[in-house]
Amino acid sequence: MAQMNPTVGDLKGNTSKIIRLIDEARTLGADLVAFPELAVSGYPPEDILFKPQFIQDCRSHVDEIVSASRDIAVVLGFPDDDDGMYNAAVVAWDGRLVDVYHKIYLPNYGVFDEKRYFKPGNRCPIYVINGVNIGVNVCEDIWYDLGPTEVQRESGAEVIVNINGSPYHAGKGDFRRQMLAGRAVTNGLFVSYTNMVGGQDELVFDGHSMLFDYAGNLVANGRQFEEELVMADLDVDGVALHRGGGNEPRREDPEALRRVGEPAIIHVSDYRERASGTTQQAVRSEPLGMPGEVYAALVLGTRDYVRKTGFQKVLIGLSGGIDSSITAVVAVEALGRENVVGVAMPSRYSSEGSIVDAKLLADNLGMEMRTIPIEDAFTAYLRSLEDQFRGTQSGVAEENLQARVRGNLLMALSNKFGWMVLTTGNKSELATGYSTLYGDMAGGFAVIKDVPKTLVYEVSEYVNRRAGKELIPRSVIEKPPSAELRPDQMDQDTLPPYDVLDPILKAYVEDDRTYDEILAMGFGEDTVQRVLQLVDRNEYKRRQAPPGVKITPRNFGRDRRMPIVNRYRNF
Amino acid sequence: MAQMNPTVGDLKGNTSKIIRLIDEARTLGADLVAFPELAVSGYPPEDILFKPQFIQDCRSHVDEIVSASRDIAVVLGFPDDDDGMYNAAVVAWDGRLVDVYHKIYLPNYGVFDEKRYFKPGNRCPIYVINGVNIGVNVCEDIWYDLGPTEVQRESGAEVIVNINGSPYHAGKGDFRRQMLAGRAVTNGLFVSYTNMVGGQDELVFDGHSMLFDYAGNLVANGRQFEEELVMADLDVDGVALHRGGGNEPRREDPEALRRVGEPAIIHVSDYRERASGTTQQAVRSEPLGMPGEVYAALVLGTRDYVRKTGFQKVLIGLSGGIDSSITAVVAVEALGRENVVGVAMPSRYSSEGSIVDAKLLADNLGMEMRTIPIEDAFTAYLRSLEDQFRGTQSGVAEENLQARVRGNLLMALSNKFGWMVLTTGNKSELATGYSTLYGDMAGGFAVIKDVPKTLVYEVSEYVNRRAGKELIPRSVIEKPPSAELRPDQMDQDTLPPYDVLDPILKAYVEDDRTYDEILAMGFGEDTVQRVLQLVDRNEYKRRQAPPGVKITPRNFGRDRRMPIVNRYRNF
Repeated sequence: MAQMNPTVGDLKGNTSKIIRLIDEARTLGADLVAFPELAVSGYPPEDILFKPQFIQDCRSHVDEIVSASRDIAVVLGFPDDDDGMYNAAVVAWDGRLVDVYHKIYLPNYGVFDEKRYFKPGNRCPIYVINGVNIGVNVCEDIWYDLGPTEVQRESGAEVIVNINGSPYHAGKGDFRRQMLAGRAVTNGLFVSYTNMVGGQDELVFDGHSMLFDYAGNLVANGRQFEEELVMADLDVDGVALHRGGGNEPRREDPEALRRVGEPAIIHVSDYRERASGTTQQAVRSEPLGMPGEVYAALVLGTRDYVRKTGFQKVLIGLSGGIDSSITAVVAVEALGRENVVGVAMPSRYSSEGSIVDAKLLADNLGMEMRTIPIEDAFTAYLRSLEDQFRGTQSGVAEENLQARVRGNLLMALSNKFGWMVLTTGNKSELATGYSTLYGDMAGGFAVIKDVPKTLVYEVSEYVNRRAGKELIPRSVIEKPPSAELRPDQMDQDTLPPYDVLDPILKAYVEDDRTYDEILAMGFGEDTVQRVLQLVDRNEYKRRQAPPGVKITPRNFGRDRRMPIVNRYRNF
Repeated sequence: MAQMNPTVGDLKGNTSKIIRLIDEARTLGADLVAFPELAVSGYPPEDILFKPQFIQDCRSHVDEIVSASRDIAVVLGFPDDDDGMYNAAVVAWDGRLVDVYHKIYLPNYGVFDEKRYFKPGNRCPIYVINGVNIGVNVCEDIWYDLGPTEVQRESGAEVIVNINGSPYHAGKGDFRRQMLAGRAVTNGLFVSYTNMVGGQDELVFDGHSMLFDYAGNLVANGRQFEEELVMADLDVDGVALHRGGGNEPRREDPEALRRVGEPAIIHVSDYRERASGTTQQAVRSEPLGMPGEVYAALVLGTRDYVRKTGFQKVLIGLSGGIDSSITAVVAVEALGRENVVGVAMPSRYSSEGSIVDAKLLADNLGMEMRTIPIEDAFTAYLRSLEDQFRGTQSGVAEENLQARVRGNLLMALSNKFGWMVLTTGNKSELATGYSTLYGDMAGGFAVIKDVPKTLVYEVSEYVNRRAGKELIPRSVIEKPPSAELRPDQMDQDTLPPYDVLDPILKAYVEDDRTYDEILAMGFGEDTVQRVLQLVDRNEYKRRQAPPGVKITPRNFGRDRRMPIVNRYRNF
């Protein structure tokens, strides 16, 4: 299982990496190596798939890879134009193309738009490779009770090679593990699940490939969020013994199976060097668990977005608050301290503590910090607007101006030196619109945009525990959150406390709970109404936000497609 | 045909409007009135459809409308949760619900994501209403050669009532007209096509409902971009005579028809008051043609976005250039001169002519213009950044700062007074990234974001012809385009001439042409490479742009889903 990190559109780079991994697998003595879904193109390629030249180019790179499959079997994802476009897996063996499998179940929910691009396949062959019966299928295909795996098992499959581009969200690993173990047991065969690694725009793929035996035991797995070649010897004889010993899996209705896809047996090679059953590799790595896996997701997602878009250095506005602090920690881990520049931009409303905390954090991380006061530009704006604003009360306009001066200063440095600005807003802020468009929302990548504030605290504590010291100063974690855009301003003047806000937001945004259901969770009417209104009214801001790493089951982005014009209120 | 303008999510408002139109139709003596696709919810409701309460609320509003259908038949679109979600049409008659039809063909391309939300239907009944055989189907259902219309014709349908939410793009009317006339002739029946009117985020629906007789003649139609109740008496006896007279349409394979959906005949009411055939309404209105229909689309799209999001007034930065001029013209037509405020924001690089032209335009339109020089704020930024920028050449950073000062001033007025900022960038700029993020791209709605620069000129000439005077000053149309961010800057220093740029952009962005194909159109290698690179590299900017009216077959928005991380280059 080659859990690799491809780059969308980098056909040449992906192909070189694939061929290098094939060579490595061959050297290790592997009979078969599997690569992720659409490994050649990267995943998801989205509307690049509509470029006919791209599809042709993918095909010629696949041909190159097939030629490189000398003495080994290769399973590899690519987009196949065969009288219609398919999300396909090529099966190659010893330098020749054996077959192309077409994915049957196409996800078209959440972040997925596969029915926009692909037709479903209708064949479920097995391949007899070195005498072992292999069924190949793609991602979603294995999630259904009656799918290609069942058809392939009926044809005698002993091993299922399932290849994936399955994006991460917190806790998804458990779902995958239970489902895969169940599929292995129900069908009485080995299930190998190869997943992609790496960030692609707002998605991050967490690797964590898994191999289960016919009894549902986890035989081998890959690390989370790291590229890796995971090897295991399979006791394939055990499948037949297991089935012969009265553990024959249930048979499905043959007609129902045929509706999934046509079965077939494709003979590739006879020679069968059975594993002894003693060299199976032990499970290598425990899952990171929470909140460590979220932190790892942020790091990989940020590193890949910055590097794959061709940037070297990043820029972060340091306020001395917890959001910009954790963003800086992630950036330093992702890119190295020498590639992260912090900028403190104090105003008349900045507390002394904030400036000290920002400096302390930068020192702890060993990163550069610059200081540019915003007072001059802010005053110039107020002067320019004096006539316009005469007779009005100071308010949101003046507060946003400060945030926008900061945004402009960061963007000026970005434009001048070619550094990407990382924004620092969290999910609770973005949900409620507690942020300034073109101000603190200005930048190329929003590292923690899908991390609710309460989880920001958990991740910060984790970071400090892991470092064995207060990387993020205690004072940053303990002080009450403030935007510092007017005297003595506190988040809690405007928003409910975060431990009230975040469960309401999760219920409304991620779980589609109704107003009545949220009230029944024990929150007050005024609070719930206010939060729901804020969420509904701020869609326009989110639409202009930069992308950031998805770490929850539903992020603000491709996952949640709300109209801006939306008069629906259910309270 | 009630071509109405609903608002997404405004169930109460939409229902009132529907009931009022039913009453009006009844008063006019109509036997049947058809409303657009998803008229109750507005279209497209997108992920609001995932809220269970929303679906229930839609249903109770449908019940209210059914009750209001006394003495008339009503066909009306709504989202139906019936063991799965369907894009449905309710058929009501004399206060009772007769049936619910489920759309069979679900578009999942371009701007459409219908497979994300809906299951396909599998029934194609006809309804015998006042003795006339009526087949009802929804939008895409009528675009296929073998669809519900064919099944319904086989059951004896004399009239097809097809209801639509079909978004506008330039020239789409001709496609619709040819397709519908063909469908009417092939099947030998009346085809009524009721389309929605109004703006919804980046989409605008153009109405232009049409009714064809069995010989393919256009019997009646609705205006483009206007709400209207379109009435016609149908000579339904003519259908039988036509068929009996040797013009029987071809029969399809019954099995193929059954695969589309089950036929059925639902008897509603016997009484049949046949039309005399003499009171058919003449075709009312000629299509606006180009570029008038584009202008009308911009006006309606802008009016509806501003009004439906609850704004009264808008704000436009007036540079004296053609883009901000046409934006102001559209805004004044859409919202009234009293609701449009222009702001001139001159800098050290603004030409005298620009300021004069901006003032002249505002005077021509009778709209307010304010002037806020940007020099103070710009200088303050340069001073604040002096240490950081020391030893560097003045360039993009300094240019963007000026655009961002303007963006901030507009947003400050917006925040202070609650006016929406309209941005002024065109499609050629957005495609090539010739614009400043958080600068001239800052605002709530981008009126001409889908209008290529060459078309901006055509629309401007049209506007002046229509006004019978130079509403947009001749000097604005004739001067060479410039961003005026450095001395003597011209667009053509950076971009190819627009009459070269725009065809390349159309070929690449809208038509998925390859590099070689574009070269074969006769453009130089350097030019084509440069343009394609600019398009590819600026996806990140477009992702943070406000929405604007779609007027081409493929806009930047839901229509084109390109990854930001994208290393694919085909040259």
